[in-house]
Amino acid sequence: MQKVACIGGGVIGGGWAARFALNGWSVALYDPAPDAQRTVAEVLANAERAFPRLVDRPLPPRGPLHVCTSLEEAVADADYVQESVPERLDLKHSVIAEIEAHAPRRALIGSSTSGFTPSALQAGMTAPERLFVAHPFNPVYLLPLVEVVPSAATAADAVEKACTMFRALGMAPLVVRKEIDAHIADRLLEAVWREALWLVHDAVATTEEIDEAIRLGFGLRWAQMGLFETYRIAGGEAGMKHFIGQFGPALAWPWTKLMDVPALTPDLIDKIAAQSDAQSGAHSIRELERIRDDNLVDILRVLKDRDWGAGRALNAYEGALPPRALRPPAEAGWLALHGAEVLPGWVDYNGHMTEHRYLQVFGEATDAFLLHIGMDAAYRAQGRSVYTVESHLRHLSEAHAGMQLAVATRLLGYDEKRVRIVHRLTAAGTEGDLATAEHMLLSVDTKAERACAMASPLPARLAEVAGAQQTLDAPDWAGHAIRTL
Amino acid sequence: MQKVACIGGGVIGGGWAARFALNGWSVALYDPAPDAQRTVAEVLANAERAFPRLVDRPLPPRGPLHVCTSLEEAVADADYVQESVPERLDLKHSVIAEIEAHAPRRALIGSSTSGFTPSALQAGMTAPERLFVAHPFNPVYLLPLVEVVPSAATAADAVEKACTMFRALGMAPLVVRKEIDAHIADRLLEAVWREALWLVHDAVATTEEIDEAIRLGFGLRWAQMGLFETYRIAGGEAGMKHFIGQFGPALAWPWTKLMDVPALTPDLIDKIAAQSDAQSGAHSIRELERIRDDNLVDILRVLKDRDWGAGRALNAYEGALPPRALRPPAEAGWLALHGAEVLPGWVDYNGHMTEHRYLQVFGEATDAFLLHIGMDAAYRAQGRSVYTVESHLRHLSEAHAGMQLAVATRLLGYDEKRVRIVHRLTAAGTEGDLATAEHMLLSVDTKAERACAMASPLPARLAEVAGAQQTLDAPDWAGHAIRTL
Repeated sequence: MQKVACIGGGVIGGGWAARFALNGWSVALYDPAPDAQRTVAEVLANAERAFPRLVDRPLPPRGPLHVCTSLEEAVADADYVQESVPERLDLKHSVIAEIEAHAPRRALIGSSTSGFTPSALQAGMTAPERLFVAHPFNPVYLLPLVEVVPSAATAADAVEKACTMFRALGMAPLVVRKEIDAHIADRLLEAVWREALWLVHDAVATTEEIDEAIRLGFGLRWAQMGLFETYRIAGGEAGMKHFIGQFGPALAWPWTKLMDVPALTPDLIDKIAAQSDAQSGAHSIRELERIRDDNLVDILRVLKDRDWGAGRALNAYEGALPPRALRPPAEAGWLALHGAEVLPGWVDYNGHMTEHRYLQVFGEATDAFLLHIGMDAAYRAQGRSVYTVESHLRHLSEAHAGMQLAVATRLLGYDEKRVRIVHRLTAAGTEGDLATAEHMLLSVDTKAERACAMASPLPARLAEVAGAQQTLDAPDWAGHAIRTL
Repeated sequence: MQKVACIGGGVIGGGWAARFALNGWSVALYDPAPDAQRTVAEVLANAERAFPRLVDRPLPPRGPLHVCTSLEEAVADADYVQESVPERLDLKHSVIAEIEAHAPRRALIGSSTSGFTPSALQAGMTAPERLFVAHPFNPVYLLPLVEVVPSAATAADAVEKACTMFRALGMAPLVVRKEIDAHIADRLLEAVWREALWLVHDAVATTEEIDEAIRLGFGLRWAQMGLFETYRIAGGEAGMKHFIGQFGPALAWPWTKLMDVPALTPDLIDKIAAQSDAQSGAHSIRELERIRDDNLVDILRVLKDRDWGAGRALNAYEGALPPRALRPPAEAGWLALHGAEVLPGWVDYNGHMTEHRYLQVFGEATDAFLLHIGMDAAYRAQGRSVYTVESHLRHLSEAHAGMQLAVATRLLGYDEKRVRIVHRLTAAGTEGDLATAEHMLLSVDTKAERACAMASPLPARLAEVAGAQQTLDAPDWAGHAIRTL
């Protein structure tokens, strides 16, 4: 098991710890704050609630998370060190020096700094080649972006190793090609933040009005395309050059206050705090976190279904997780071709697996059976497929989140166009059926959209399976209708 | 039918025209450009494809859209005029003077200007009280935000009427309390745009890297919370005051280039255009628009399910639309309690609705039936529920993405613990069944996890439904088993 040391256990350090632990790393965390243990436990609880709902393959077993009493103890065996202490250069320097003194020589060091360049952090290091900036975004356990910033002194293979590691955590590393204070994203955020402070200061808008101006408009665009791709579209067929030509002159107009920085007087701070209370005070911070996480999970799942933007990074991550393991047959002679885990997004308000997820698992088991008898991509490329035309499901017991499911499959009969199969669904390692399914499948010509005889190798394979299962009795629940009341 | 005149038929004017037409307004559009007719038709086609997917009630019949040959003709009978001509003050002044000369005195005038104040636009008007800024965001037919900016000369009831009208179009008007160049959102956008141009100019990042820095990170946050609510969470229990105190000093750091404006030299324009081609050139503008719209529709639907942010505005809009006329029952006497749309994420590699989504729709229809007989949250709070224990599905035809589905439901029988129902699934407005379902439902004591008699009001309601349906024959496909092969 790989080991990470997280130095600093605030919302960022705790978020890193959660992302590593949920991906099977052993986490050692150090933070001198007396309530570090509690803060980290809260972030981890949020992460355990939200992160698994993004993923449709089982995650590795959660790694242990140990809150250490010294930095030395935390970094002792670390394969990787993530520094997330407050944004003061002197503090960062002393923490990095301590890491260098106690961490194994092999351990790379990433800094969560929002603002400092890697060169600034490397000043005084013995082995600066092992350090780079790895700047994540809150909540670290959900947002994929991590800005990876090397300096000229950073080893090229350190950056490469870091990117591989971040991808395996479900993140999307963006290697920043030139060191600059605040990297990329925070330069943009800083520009917006200053302008927003002016708008509040000048009583043009309240904090709530500014937030509405963002989330009802361009925020929706930016969740899935950025700035340039959005403007490329606005430019239309005339292209980006036309767009800039048209909007270029406006740059010289006095549309921003950004030449200037508002003074953060106590009055301005009070004004912002009071407006923010009026806007968001009905929810506790914990509630807001969960609202945010639920929104983000569902938005990320939308993008995942479309393999777009942040969803593309998630799909690449998921594709690299090991597929579901096959389960042992439930009864001798039955085929064990499919297993599944009840994912957190599959349960309803009762805590039970939602009705249609049973059919999803049975449908996947049917697909596995069809693959077993030779209906692969090459077979389908000939314009033939096999569709389910009839299903009979019996629900016998509840499946709960996290349960490992096993499906056992039997062939009950077939002719040249049709196949009749049954499945039993059990919790892996137990006997009782959670549900059963009986299906009639039909061979179709997908172009003509009508039934047709199955082609090779399906008939021969079906004969093989039927031969292997011919001594078995048909289950007594098969072939029944729903009783009349 | 209310009539709107849209002056200017670019991407913004065309978007306005589409939003009005889809909400049943008669639209007269004028644009001197020779290809206005084509451009507007393209925007309208996009809008017709995307906007109805946001709404779960039927929209009013689409209003006519007429492209006029003169401004005078367009505004002649207008109840409202929306000006969306290019951002040149002299041009806006002459267009507004022409509108004043020809539009009915009652017609309010909204300007789509991104930058000018209403006072600047009102200079020289005879009746300035009828004009305000109504600044929308592209795509106008999907994004809810419209910044409504009055000047001191604008009539208060004009603003009120405009807000009511915009809400009835599914928009979320944000009344800007103080005139300022670029209003609110574009001040923030302008700040980001300048900083982004510097990042490209200085070769810190490409257009694609900047877009990734936005959409993989803070863009996801901004789609559902804005700037201040996000930072409020980051500040944690210590609150907004603590957050600002902590991050305030960073404002003085040289993290932005915004004191300065990059010169838009031909070299810089070429660099941006070339990078944008490399980033997005694989897709045509039309493809990008549809990718964007599909993403936005699904993200907006996520927020709508959660009644949050832009989704809350959509729900308010939808709630004011006339409720869904229950689908004409497929056969007299059947209940029409549920409809659904085949969402893009519901189709498989064949372009057909995935098997288990049929059961999802049937399960939702069963929930609607149970609600119909009184199994609401209060009933469940007593520790009783009704579960599906058996299902028989027949797949008869394919459902495709975007298809509107209607479910018709019949009660076939019940006793004190059990209910037997059937559903027919059709494409709305057509006759043939796509699929049928037969379900046995069982009343359960959810604490003891065992069957129990149904409680009031279910037995009485079931008797009512059975009474209303007693003259119907049972469908000939019900009560059958899957045939043996």
